[in-house]
Order: sequence, then C-alpha cells, then structure tokens
Amino acid sequence: MNAEQEHDQFFINNCLSELAKIGETPEGGVTRLAFTVEDVLARNKIMEWMELVGLKVRLDAAGNIFGRYTPDNSDGEVVMIGSHIDTVINGGLYDGALGVVVGLCAIRRIIRSSPKMKRSIELVIFSDEEGVRFGGGLFGSKALIKDIALESITNFTDEKGISLFEALKNVGGDAEQIPHLNLNGDVKCYLEAHIDQSNELNDEEKPIGIVTAIAGPVSLSMKILGRAGHAGAEPMDQRKDALAGAAEIILAVEETVKAVKCNYLVGTVGNMKLYPGASNVIPGEVELTIDIRGIDAKIREEALKKIIEKAKQICTARGLILDIFEKHRVDPISLDEELISLLEDTSDELGIPYKKIISRASHDAMNMAKVVPTCMLLVRNMTGSSHCPEEEASIEDILKTVDLTAAVLQKIIFSEK
Amino acid sequence: MNAEQEHDQFFINNCLSELAKIGETPEGGVTRLAFTVEDVLARNKIMEWMELVGLKVRLDAAGNIFGRYTPDNSDGEVVMIGSHIDTVINGGLYDGALGVVVGLCAIRRIIRSSPKMKRSIELVIFSDEEGVRFGGGLFGSKALIKDIALESITNFTDEKGISLFEALKNVGGDAEQIPHLNLNGDVKCYLEAHIDQSNELNDEEKPIGIVTAIAGPVSLSMKILGRAGHAGAEPMDQRKDALAGAAEIILAVEETVKAVKCNYLVGTVGNMKLYPGASNVIPGEVELTIDIRGIDAKIREEALKKIIEKAKQICTARGLILDIFEKHRVDPISLDEELISLLEDTSDELGIPYKKIISRASHDAMNMAKVVPTCMLLVRNMTGSSHCPEEEASIEDILKTVDLTAAVLQKIIFSEK
Repeated sequence: MNAEQEHDQFFINNCLSELAKIGETPEGGVTRLAFTVEDVLARNKIMEWMELVGLKVRLDAAGNIFGRYTPDNSDGEVVMIGSHIDTVINGGLYDGALGVVVGLCAIRRIIRSSPKMKRSIELVIFSDEEGVRFGGGLFGSKALIKDIALESITNFTDEKGISLFEALKNVGGDAEQIPHLNLNGDVKCYLEAHIDQSNELNDEEKPIGIVTAIAGPVSLSMKILGRAGHAGAEPMDQRKDALAGAAEIILAVEETVKAVKCNYLVGTVGNMKLYPGASNVIPGEVELTIDIRGIDAKIREEALKKIIEKAKQICTARGLILDIFEKHRVDPISLDEELISLLEDTSDELGIPYKKIISRASHDAMNMAKVVPTCMLLVRNMTGSSHCPEEEASIEDILKTVDLTAAVLQKIIFSEK
Repeated sequence: MNAEQEHDQFFINNCLSELAKIGETPEGGVTRLAFTVEDVLARNKIMEWMELVGLKVRLDAAGNIFGRYTPDNSDGEVVMIGSHIDTVINGGLYDGALGVVVGLCAIRRIIRSSPKMKRSIELVIFSDEEGVRFGGGLFGSKALIKDIALESITNFTDEKGISLFEALKNVGGDAEQIPHLNLNGDVKCYLEAHIDQSNELNDEEKPIGIVTAIAGPVSLSMKILGRAGHAGAEPMDQRKDALAGAAEIILAVEETVKAVKCNYLVGTVGNMKLYPGASNVIPGEVELTIDIRGIDAKIREEALKKIIEKAKQICTARGLILDIFEKHRVDPISLDEELISLLEDTSDELGIPYKKIISRASHDAMNMAKVVPTCMLLVRNMTGSSHCPEEEASIEDILKTVDLTAAVLQKIIFSEK
C-alpha cells in the first residue's frame, strides 16, 4: 500500500464511521430517513467535507447537494459521480454512504494529483433515494430529470401526515421550484458506486461488479376493507376479516413470482398496517405494499397482472373491498456500453478482478441514465445482506473501487472526445 | 311509558351520550384505553354520577371504582352489579358503558322506591377490562379475586413502554397493594349487563339474553424471526421472509378453527407488527397475536395445540425462528343456576321475552363467578357488530334491562335467604 492509499484508507474509514454515528441503532445499523434531523446532520457533515476537499457546494430545490470542482481552463463539460445518504429503517452502514465516500475520495485524489484538468468534476448527493418515509424513492434524481409532478410531491406524506412538500424545507429545498430544475452545464457522464445488495460478487470472489443493467421496481399499495368485530363473539362464517384476506394476498405474491422461471424477478410485501389492531378485535382494514422487480419489463408486467387478478379474486371470495394504488414505477434500464468498456479496460490495466453484473436494486443511476451516459460499480458485500445492519464491505475492496473510479474519471476529464 | 320510565330514559340517554363524547373518534366510535386521559375523564364522570345517585364512592388498589348504598338496617351482605368503561380502539358506544348505565339506573330506581332495603347494593366499575393497551384483559376483576401475580403487572407494558404498574397510578391505583385486595364484606351475588356481541338476539327478536355460560379465551403472542433484506436484491429462494411465514400462520388459525364443527369456537389474529416495515425491505421480524375462544375447554385446547404445531412446521420449513408466549388464559365458565332461574321467572312476570344464551366474549363476570354466585344479561345488538362504531342497542331494550335488573335486585336485597 502506497502513502496515498494509506491516507485514503484513513479518510474512508473516518468518513464512514462519522456517518455511521448519525442515526445509529442499538442493532449496529443506522436509521436516517429523508429530511429528518439525522439526514440534516449527515448532509451538513458531507457539505463540510466537500468544502475541505475543495469543492464548491450548491443545493437545488429538490434538496440535492452538489459539490463541484471547476478547473481554470474548463471546457464547460462536467463529469458527475453520485450517491445518497438517506437510509431505510435500521439499514446498513454502506448503502449510499459507500458511494458518497468513494466519490469524495476519488475526486480528492484527482484534484491533488492533476488540478489542471480539462473538465469540471462534481459529486452529487441525491435526496430521498430510499423513499421509506414518503413512499416512492429516487426522489432527488427524478426531480433533477423532470420526471416528477408537483402534485405527487404534495400527495406524498409520512406516517405523521407531514408532506414531502413540507419536509423538503428542512433541507433548504423548495418544491415549487422543482419544475425549473436543470442539469447544471453540459454533463458528460454519470457514475455511481454502491455496495452489492446480494451474495453474487462474494460468491464469485470478485471485489467489483460493473453493472450492465438495472432491474426496475413497480411499487403498489393495496387497501383491503373488511369489517371489524369482536374476536370472541363473531362466528367464523360471518366474518369479513381483512387480515385473513391480506395473508392470502401475501402468499399469492410469493407464489406468483416464484412460479416465473427467471431469477431476476422478485416480489415483496414489505410493509403492512392493520386497523384497529387489537388482539381481541377482528381486523377491519389492512393496508399493504407490494414491490415487484425484474430486468424484463414484460415478465414483470405479466406477474403484476396475475397478482392483481388473484388479489381481486381473494377479496371477492371473502366479501372484502380492495383498492389498489400504483405508487412508483421505474422501467428496467441498460447502462452505457462505452462506459462499461472503459471500466472493463481500466480494471484490466489496474489488475482489479471484476464481474459484469446486473443490479437488482434500483438506484438514482436509473434516472440519470435517461439523460446522460451512465454506469455503475458494485462493491463486494461480505455478508450478502442488504438494508440491514449486517451488510459489510471491506476497506480493501473500497480502496480498489476508489482506484478504479479515480482512474476512469481521470481518463474522462482529460479525453479529447 | 310511566313517569319513572320516562325519567329513566332521559337519564340513560344522557349518561350514554356524555360517555360517548369522551374519546370519540371521527368514525363515530370511541377510543378510551385503560388508564389514559380519556379513561380518567370517564371515571371522574361516573364517580360524580354515583355521588348524585347517593352512593358512597371508593377506589381500590387495582383502580376499580365502587359506589355503595348501605341502608340503615343493613345485614352486612352486599349485592353487586358491575361493568367497565374502557374500550377497544374505535370501539362502540355500548360495550361496557351500557352495563354501567343499566346498573346505575337500576340502583337509583331501587334507592328511590325502597331505601329501607335489607342488604347493601354496590355498583363496580372494573378497570382495564379490554386489555388493549397492556394485553391481558379483565385486569380489575382478576386483581380483586387475587388471580394476578404482581410480577405480571410489572411485565405488562404498552406500545410506548409504559408499564401497567406505572399507568395504574394515573387512576389512583397502587399495584403493590393489589395482593392485599379483598371483596369488601359478604358479597351475596354479582350481576352484569352487556350489549350482545353477536346477531343472536337480533335474529331471534329477543330484547334480552340470560347468559348460562361464558366462552373462555386463550391469548397468545407469536414472534417470528427471519432475516431482513433488500426487496429488490435478494433472490426469492434465499429469503427468510417473516411476513410470508406469518401469512401462513394467519391462514392456519382460520383453517384449524373452521375445521372444528363447533360454532362456538373462534380464532382471530387481531394484531400484528412487522419490522422494519418498509416497502423495499423484506420483513425480518413479525409479532402477531392469536385469540382462541370456546365454551368447551377441551375442544379449545385441541385447536390451540394444532395451531401451534402448524406454526412450528411453517417456521421450520421457511428457516424462521418461532417464539410463542401465552399472554392470557381464561377457562370457559358456567353461571349460577339459581340466579338464572330467578332472572327467568322475573322476566316472565314482567312479560319481557328472553333467550337463554351463551356469551362468546369474556367478561369480568367470569372472574366474579369463581368467588360468588354470578349471572349476566345480554341486551339485543341491532347491528350484531361489536368492538366497532356500528354496535347499537335501542333505548327500549335498555329500559327493559333496567326493569328486569331492578326487579331482580329488589328481590335479592329483600329475600330472607
């Protein structure tokens, strides 16, 4: 390990452990939901680091944070690298944070070694990537590429009834200005590094995955209306138990997705609320979420259609009323072939083993890919677990990712093309 | 309708509508959980009414409220009538309140018409009947008959972590003194009136049910431990989805209970929490409640055993860890035959149609029946719905219940036996 790598190791470890403290949970994870106090504290920390590294910090109306280095002889183009710092409830320490720290470290290395670059370089922290608090997700990047309607921002509310519209003010955002957002300058490309959210790289003993395509999620909310009643007094054959109906739907999601012989298709009921929710009352109402993802839009659509049909049949048979809302839909997307080749070639030059891989999880890169050449790197996850405290990346693999990222960025900011 | 009945009608309507306001919900129901501000307000209201009617009010260490009238020539015996005023979440306006108001109105009528009775008469408001906030239920009557361990009171906590032990102080209770509770004097018998929690009286067009037996509930809590993970990234065949396991258990409860050819056996999963609870995270942990009731302890036990076996099989097959806690168990009980006959004879004398009926729901009468002769009256429920805003009793039926109750109490307080 050379002196630069040693310094980077301290830098990375320090940044990751500082972020891990903000919203830490008793289980060793972190809860840093979008636009909460924890999010604000982490955002402030990152803006501080951006300035230390020499970046000029800017916020946009959607709460996205940009830190840009513009060389004296800039040609007006900008190379972007980004990630997020919000988390799920009791999430891991690397989801989002790893990409931010890799980007910051790579940019820092480039500015130190070759400040007289040709193009600007910019780190972006997209706001509300996870969508846990308000539903949806990928909010900041959607807003940036004008793929979000102002009305939907007003409709999104958290459990306490606070709207995304209001919460956005906590981080200096202004929802009404979102329709006027624009990419700032001529963006040459976008890169994003992220911890792997499966065992794939771990199983194949590869530190890095070069992502060729990203699976797209459809997220539904189902509301099942039955009739509350006394758990002791109402005979079984007279009940309209919303929870029993919901249980059948949960199993129908699992069964339908498993029946499709495509291991990239997954379906999850991740959240559910029942009302009134007492041990001696038959549940009168249940609300649940359904998340279906795949890299083939057609297969995903067929599965979704089957699930909805089954849910309707289940509710009809039980005398329940079913309401379905589609909350969020992102189509599967292929990443930029030129960037993929550049990442492959540079990995080979640096002697870093890699695997071409798909990302099953969605990322802000899906939105950026719609407007600029985009690619992603995944970093080996030593436990294969994701969205939980167990996820883990080694410092060695993170340093390799910084090496590859910095080398590729360097090529792009000096290339004649 | 005579002048007395007309006055009683105003009295009953006024009391019920005053109580309905305390904790009212937007759906037209009421939420008045034990030992909350709403409970305290309702308790104060009732103590005020007790004093207006001429009763001497006393509180015990378990938060039970007693209002007693002792005649000058008392023989030392006391006749008790009681109910509760706590409710479930968004419960109806009659569950508990009806019994309190019938008792108060009947006692008031007796004191007015024959103050020189032989025995004392007492209205009791048992605390925390529903058990929604802390689990369990029938707390006040259990404490009174010494059927509760001090340790369990310390263990019972609500969602915010407040213990029953602490909350009891809100109503002037003192958990440490509960082991010293005693029935105050020589209790001759206990009566309780309650709205019917089924369609049975309504279907048979009978205003009153004379209860011969009460079904007993067993209440379990199951904790299902799986592994949280990313809803997009984790392939279906690698998941340990706690919610999918819970869904199978919910359906197993329904199926097992329905398979028993006894329409008095019912089983309900009424509450459930999942963790972490986000649309894009596979649920890693689920906690659910199971409530099984029947009037035959053996049939109930067999069903319970089958459900537990099935739950274990389901969790083993899915690689989930299952923890089961029994929270609450009350055996089915038969009520006092002499009191049943007295109620039947008196109904016949007054020309009030009745049906001999079982109570599927549990009541404080189950505890009182263990220590003193006990009987219950059910009042026709015009919608058959219970534990929800729809439950409804007519003023005519409530007045008939007051007539019957007052006549029977009168007989008992003057009887030579």
